[in-house]
Amino acid sequence: MIEYIDHIGIAVHSIEENLPHYEGVLGLTCERVEEVPSQKVRTAFFKVGQTYLELLEPTAPDSPVAKFLEKNGEGVHHVAFHTADVQAALDHAGGKGVRLLHEKPVPGAHSKLVGFLHPKSTHGVLTEFCMNAPGAPAHD
Amino acid sequence: MIEYIDHIGIAVHSIEENLPHYEGVLGLTCERVEEVPSQKVRTAFFKVGQTYLELLEPTAPDSPVAKFLEKNGEGVHHVAFHTADVQAALDHAGGKGVRLLHEKPVPGAHSKLVGFLHPKSTHGVLTEFCMNAPGAPAHD
Repeated sequence: MIEYIDHIGIAVHSIEENLPHYEGVLGLTCERVEEVPSQKVRTAFFKVGQTYLELLEPTAPDSPVAKFLEKNGEGVHHVAFHTADVQAALDHAGGKGVRLLHEKPVPGAHSKLVGFLHPKSTHGVLTEFCMNAPGAPAHD
Repeated sequence: MIEYIDHIGIAVHSIEENLPHYEGVLGLTCERVEEVPSQKVRTAFFKVGQTYLELLEPTAPDSPVAKFLEKNGEGVHHVAFHTADVQAALDHAGGKGVRLLHEKPVPGAHSKLVGFLHPKSTHGVLTEFCMNAPGAPAHD
């Protein structure tokens, strides 16, 4: 059901201040920066093989990522698995007793439909399922 | 220089207690369990596309992973990037001012040679470079 790791979400205070690390040290290329108003974040994508690193910079103090940064500092925020059918993956997880943050897929960055599992149900890893939205250009 | 994400290391209290999540909920297969005495961990590998999820269970109270669990609870511990030359990647990072946990590659799980960057130099993401040890069977 899960095909590959679509992206690793990484919470940062400032995308700009992280560029010397991701570009200069790791030698990656920032392909695009995109704002996701529903999550109150700016995102920057760096492709590494099949997977993107997605830097998440909060755009408001009440952004979920701002709260994560207050509690944890910068670091890995979530892991996103690409699947052909987010609804089926959510339904399967819910049927196994996993607490869902989304019962139905919602729009995410990068023209995706996404759904999250609660980290209390996933042994501490905030877990996302995602797929390309119907009609959206494939990025992978 | 970096080719793909080799694995995501996830700290857990017990591999066995995590199997219902990784196998039952996510539908992945545990390919192997391996002990790494130098790190005082047992590891379990689940392949997802190009990348492995590597569960890390401490085998002693003074294991670095035991200390991570005490401080943070279960969750993502490190991100490992596959590269053709770990020494060159470490040297490049060191030359950019990154604090290294290893100046030279050391043996890791899965017949790899590995080297780590300090998370204080990488905006909170404990970062590993790894490559297949010369003469070792390729796993990827």
